[in-house]
Amino acid sequence: MADGRVKEPVITLTAGPVQAYPRISRAMARPIHYDFDPYFQSVYEDVARKCATALRVEEPALIVHAEPAVGLEAAAASLISRDDVVLNLASGVYGKGYGYWAARYCKELLEIEVPYNEAISAAQVSQMLRTRPDIAIVTAVHHDTPSGTLNPVNEIGKVVRDHGSLFLVDAVSSFAGMDIHPDDCYADVFVTGPGKCLGGAPGLTVMAVSEAAWEHMEANPDCPGASVLSLTDWKDAWSKDAPFPFTPAIAEINGLDAALDVYLEEGPETVWRRHALTARACRAGVKALGLELWAAREEIASPTATTIKVPDGMDDALIRSTMRDVFGTVISGGRGDTAGKLLRIGHMGPVAEPIYAVVAITALAGALSKLGREVDLAAGVAAATAVIMESA
Amino acid sequence: MADGRVKEPVITLTAGPVQAYPRISRAMARPIHYDFDPYFQSVYEDVARKCATALRVEEPALIVHAEPAVGLEAAAASLISRDDVVLNLASGVYGKGYGYWAARYCKELLEIEVPYNEAISAAQVSQMLRTRPDIAIVTAVHHDTPSGTLNPVNEIGKVVRDHGSLFLVDAVSSFAGMDIHPDDCYADVFVTGPGKCLGGAPGLTVMAVSEAAWEHMEANPDCPGASVLSLTDWKDAWSKDAPFPFTPAIAEINGLDAALDVYLEEGPETVWRRHALTARACRAGVKALGLELWAAREEIASPTATTIKVPDGMDDALIRSTMRDVFGTVISGGRGDTAGKLLRIGHMGPVAEPIYAVVAITALAGALSKLGREVDLAAGVAAATAVIMESA
Amino acid sequence: MADGRVKEPVITLTAGPVQAYPRISRAMARPIHYDFDPYFQSVYEDVARKCATALRVEEPALIVHAEPAVGLEAAAASLISRDDVVLNLASGVYGKGYGYWAARYCKELLEIEVPYNEAISAAQVSQMLRTRPDIAIVTAVHHDTPSGTLNPVNEIGKVVRDHGSLFLVDAVSSFAGMDIHPDDCYADVFVTGPGKCLGGAPGLTVMAVSEAAWEHMEANPDCPGASVLSLTDWKDAWSKDAPFPFTPAIAEINGLDAALDVYLEEGPETVWRRHALTARACRAGVKALGLELWAAREEIASPTATTIKVPDGMDDALIRSTMRDVFGTVISGGRGDTAGKLLRIGHMGPVAEPIYAVVAITALAGALSKLGREVDLAAGVAAATAVIMESA
Amino acid sequence: MADGRVKEPVITLTAGPVQAYPRISRAMARPIHYDFDPYFQSVYEDVARKCATALRVEEPALIVHAEPAVGLEAAAASLISRDDVVLNLASGVYGKGYGYWAARYCKELLEIEVPYNEAISAAQVSQMLRTRPDIAIVTAVHHDTPSGTLNPVNEIGKVVRDHGSLFLVDAVSSFAGMDIHPDDCYADVFVTGPGKCLGGAPGLTVMAVSEAAWEHMEANPDCPGASVLSLTDWKDAWSKDAPFPFTPAIAEINGLDAALDVYLEEGPETVWRRHALTARACRAGVKALGLELWAAREEIASPTATTIKVPDGMDDALIRSTMRDVFGTVISGGRGDTAGKLLRIGHMGPVAEPIYAVVAITALAGALSKLGREVDLAAGVAAATAVIMESA
Repeated sequence: MADGRVKEPVITLTAGPVQAYPRISRAMARPIHYDFDPYFQSVYEDVARKCATALRVEEPALIVHAEPAVGLEAAAASLISRDDVVLNLASGVYGKGYGYWAARYCKELLEIEVPYNEAISAAQVSQMLRTRPDIAIVTAVHHDTPSGTLNPVNEIGKVVRDHGSLFLVDAVSSFAGMDIHPDDCYADVFVTGPGKCLGGAPGLTVMAVSEAAWEHMEANPDCPGASVLSLTDWKDAWSKDAPFPFTPAIAEINGLDAALDVYLEEGPETVWRRHALTARACRAGVKALGLELWAAREEIASPTATTIKVPDGMDDALIRSTMRDVFGTVISGGRGDTAGKLLRIGHMGPVAEPIYAVVAITALAGALSKLGREVDLAAGVAAATAVIMESA
Repeated sequence: MADGRVKEPVITLTAGPVQAYPRISRAMARPIHYDFDPYFQSVYEDVARKCATALRVEEPALIVHAEPAVGLEAAAASLISRDDVVLNLASGVYGKGYGYWAARYCKELLEIEVPYNEAISAAQVSQMLRTRPDIAIVTAVHHDTPSGTLNPVNEIGKVVRDHGSLFLVDAVSSFAGMDIHPDDCYADVFVTGPGKCLGGAPGLTVMAVSEAAWEHMEANPDCPGASVLSLTDWKDAWSKDAPFPFTPAIAEINGLDAALDVYLEEGPETVWRRHALTARACRAGVKALGLELWAAREEIASPTATTIKVPDGMDDALIRSTMRDVFGTVISGGRGDTAGKLLRIGHMGPVAEPIYAVVAITALAGALSKLGREVDLAAGVAAATAVIMESA
Repeated sequence: MADGRVKEPVITLTAGPVQAYPRISRAMARPIHYDFDPYFQSVYEDVARKCATALRVEEPALIVHAEPAVGLEAAAASLISRDDVVLNLASGVYGKGYGYWAARYCKELLEIEVPYNEAISAAQVSQMLRTRPDIAIVTAVHHDTPSGTLNPVNEIGKVVRDHGSLFLVDAVSSFAGMDIHPDDCYADVFVTGPGKCLGGAPGLTVMAVSEAAWEHMEANPDCPGASVLSLTDWKDAWSKDAPFPFTPAIAEINGLDAALDVYLEEGPETVWRRHALTARACRAGVKALGLELWAAREEIASPTATTIKVPDGMDDALIRSTMRDVFGTVISGGRGDTAGKLLRIGHMGPVAEPIYAVVAITALAGALSKLGREVDLAAGVAAATAVIMESA
Repeated sequence: MADGRVKEPVITLTAGPVQAYPRISRAMARPIHYDFDPYFQSVYEDVARKCATALRVEEPALIVHAEPAVGLEAAAASLISRDDVVLNLASGVYGKGYGYWAARYCKELLEIEVPYNEAISAAQVSQMLRTRPDIAIVTAVHHDTPSGTLNPVNEIGKVVRDHGSLFLVDAVSSFAGMDIHPDDCYADVFVTGPGKCLGGAPGLTVMAVSEAAWEHMEANPDCPGASVLSLTDWKDAWSKDAPFPFTPAIAEINGLDAALDVYLEEGPETVWRRHALTARACRAGVKALGLELWAAREEIASPTATTIKVPDGMDDALIRSTMRDVFGTVISGGRGDTAGKLLRIGHMGPVAEPIYAVVAITALAGALSKLGREVDLAAGVAAATAVIMESA
């Protein structure tokens, strides 16, 4: 390849960034307009409102012009004051990681931590809130992507709201792939982005922020201003009549515009259904191959990514590179503490289609066989296919 | 228009974001690949190296995955320690603004400030450095975009280097539109991006960082880590063998890839020449219209944007909206302290072509006439055209 | 440039192919679908119906999968039988050319020919029909592009219809740039395409065919079948339930889809208005430059292209290449008999915007001056601008 | 779906039009340039020369601006004169069809016809040439797409050349998917296009024409001129210094440009290898499912499409719609005489990747099961996968 570039893979089934819908990619090729031109300002307002429609909230969404990790860091910096006791829920690498950001800004960090193949229950949270009624903010990850597991944020959120604390939810890799919205989980700050189940490019954060959360930020003496870490800088930027504090990422906004159209035109329920079906077929295939799901229980396995224990004695990087070399198929490995321990097959956006479960199972089983681990490829594919056919 | 969207303008001649080259826009529509896939990692290294080629430095460039204001803030946060005395050069709104960021992190902020239609000389800097030999870092904007004026950073940089201080240069809206590179101005941190003269989308920062600057950051106890404000997080990310600390903005990298190809294939000298000619024609037109250039002297007027004093008693927003309504042509107004006082005609990327000087002069003169201010449109166009024809 | 490629021009103001709207170009990048897949078949029917909406007829349009010259040739081959006396109206190179195609198939070819800067009147046609009541088919070009002149096809069509003959109208370069539709001119075969005023790519023909014309074709023993020259092959292909006789040009259909959306969403009347205004400004500029319009009378000058006599003793190719070299601006020359005699400035699609009249006048005047012909550039631009400003 | 549009399928594995490489689709979105502008003329010459490189011939290719059926019809019209005895080889629907076109123009049409799952041997042709030494032209289809079978055109061509006749070869759906070039098969007219194994859009014909063939056309008194059916009109159009007789399909040329880059950069041998491997895996899967290949012998099965007999008593349209409904996967049915009798799985361009053989086998087997026909899906997938793994 020219310039030392490696050959492109054929099919990408990762936990994000994901293959984008072609329509979204084309939207990113729209002409770049001046951010202060009335045209772009009207587009921006329309996109912020359309985000709200997708999020099923009233207020136009807050858009941060960098990928969700930045949005999450900014949320910690803006929301959490030096007077706040924060309870962080750590059921995976991302949940654990959020504690580090929270700890930078809070008075005291409390944490509930469970093994990274488990979920945290509303009861555990309730118990902690009773013990420490001074908890001002609870932070949680809905789908802890490096584990492929879900926390029951709807139940947790109810408990948090009843207690009167603020609830910050990272729904980056679950929103738009399943039935989860800010009001479902009583979130005060709900964070997502276009690069996962919306099937767009990574490069923006989309947030819904409650009135209570805005008040908390405005009361926070350390809330950043004139900074990428400031949410308040951008609070009113959605309005076509308000100026932008800094330059928005025009092309990413154009992509988000199309991502929302794709999602809303197909119909959220239809989109969630194919995510769920693909994951179900994939899990059936994995089990029929004789492999073990990473999630302690199938109920907490995300419909947006399937995680699989790396068979004993095998090297996950070698498995993945073999899948790529022989079948042109790319999946994800673990991250941080889960690195080397699990494999991740994403079901997000355009590849949340049942046939890709078959692709994943075939490539995984083929690679394992190639590396000397006997698995029953035929049984795996048959099981995945059976799930697909039953649902049709 | 659907969804309350305003009609698109016909021609955009702003000081950025600018109309992108179609080839760059198409590149942003390339398939989104997984960031940890060897294909994308090889693209990323290639792009970082190609940045270095364009910047005329050895080391692969540092890419920050948000627009240059973020990169500049991160540079302040990472480079400037609580032990550093910083000299900030303020010859415009952006220069002045950088002082606010510097002040957050430094021990003491010194400033040389001149009227915002003026430039700061190397002699002024030299004088200050003699007075305060403890200055560790000097920060400057090359082209202060809200003024359209250039500081002589090559001369200033020599003085700073000789003194042994570090030099941070914001060349966001000059690089690739004229002959300016990190080594030309002895910059330790040189900041630019694809959204101005490279004719790409805003959404990335491209930096060249010297070894001395890296050492200063690594010695800075407050240098952020695990943060969007950390430059050190991304130091080694250019290598195809190194992991990304956070998710890169895939589509923006694809756009940058094409932006560099467009620039290097046409040839930097050729690109600069058309920027310079367009600006020269534009300035000639402005003067022949009987309007005043904002820059105190034409030598400090940037070849990448022409700034014009708003005629007495006129409203700049009305002038610009009339240009848009009647001629479909969009230009920029001022920012901050220059807002309402000047108009800005960008000559950046694909519109750094002489014919657009004629477009700008016509639309400007037409709008002024429409609003009751007599200007000699014919003379303006004739003067601009004469410059173009002489050079041909 | 790599591969011996010449540098791209900056602005294209030709009489077609024209610069496409970016939205149409992006549509051509949509995924290619299988022609017999229900998705593409439903798109095709929708596009054929949307053509009908734009053409203001009832029946879905007939689409020929090659540029309009092919569609016109096919119309001659399919419609004109060996028993038909045909009257061809020749007021320009294209009108004259149609006679050659008609002559291949008809029993006898009659022609009304006028100088190529003139138009043919309904009275002339009426007179001929009285003389030769056996004329079965009349063929005319609405806008004879190589002359930039219009024939009054609405009046002519009325005469033809009253006489009971069939009327074939080439409206390739007028439809969508002005108020002309099949029923306005009583056309039995009305031929246009996406590559002129619709601002799309050349590569398709769009036709409205009357019931009488279909009957005539079906009665024509020599009407081709299983051939690119057959209109009847494709008669029913618009229906999502009918098979395609040959492979349709998928990408071109996707482009046409977007072209129609662009046209219908902006609103035909709005689109025509800016074509007309641009042409009016351009003609004013030409006259103020002291140059002569090619059209004998301004009433017959097309709003979609302005034609100008090449000044005596000058070489049109040199004028055009100078415009390109100095101003990056491309216009058209003549064709056939008009080659070398006139210059053509197109006002079609996205460049049918008044500011481009100024661009054209500047580049033309600049080039003439450069080549030693004194013209008053300032007066030309002032005159064009005055027209624009009056209309605002 | 809006406008009555059906939902898009997920994966298209047809015998053409095929899913295009994204890079080619993006190229079709390039700006439309004026055909007579030096830029486009230089692109056109470069593309015609690059075609020659891919075809492994000396002379720039002839490009016809419509899909290959038009190019093939034009070749018949231009090459075959009323004095020519033509031998047409009919081993399938397309071969048979070519005889109808040949018959329009020739003095006498001879034909060798075999069952449509068979191939015609060089010995059969040799025998016929001995019987009828007056045969001037032999016409053959290399890959008769509606049958998925190959004729041994290299051997046949040798026989024809030795006899002194001209040889016209339709290689539309084999070129670029396997090792076949004009000189390999002694073709005088070799016809292909971008819409099959090159993985581009349908809409152009690419031809290599021998000097002898040009001479034959030029000597043909009935060779069309000023017609879409004329090859001679376009003979010299490749040259950047020659005018175009009619408007070329600009966007399609841009797509072809990219298609050739994709092909040549990957390397033809590499491209052919993955076509062959995908077909081999697919055939293994089909057989393991207990289904029958359509081709009489596997040696004549094309590496670019696999054809399968429709199981007795089953409806091919229902099988295909079930594959689409349940698995989102689209394949082709038969055409003409093969319609209803076979199913076709294309291996062309971007889907000529082994993993898609698994997709096809899964979707086919799943659909058959769903419709009540027992097939061993697991065995089919296992067999296809085994072929893939052996080759890795």
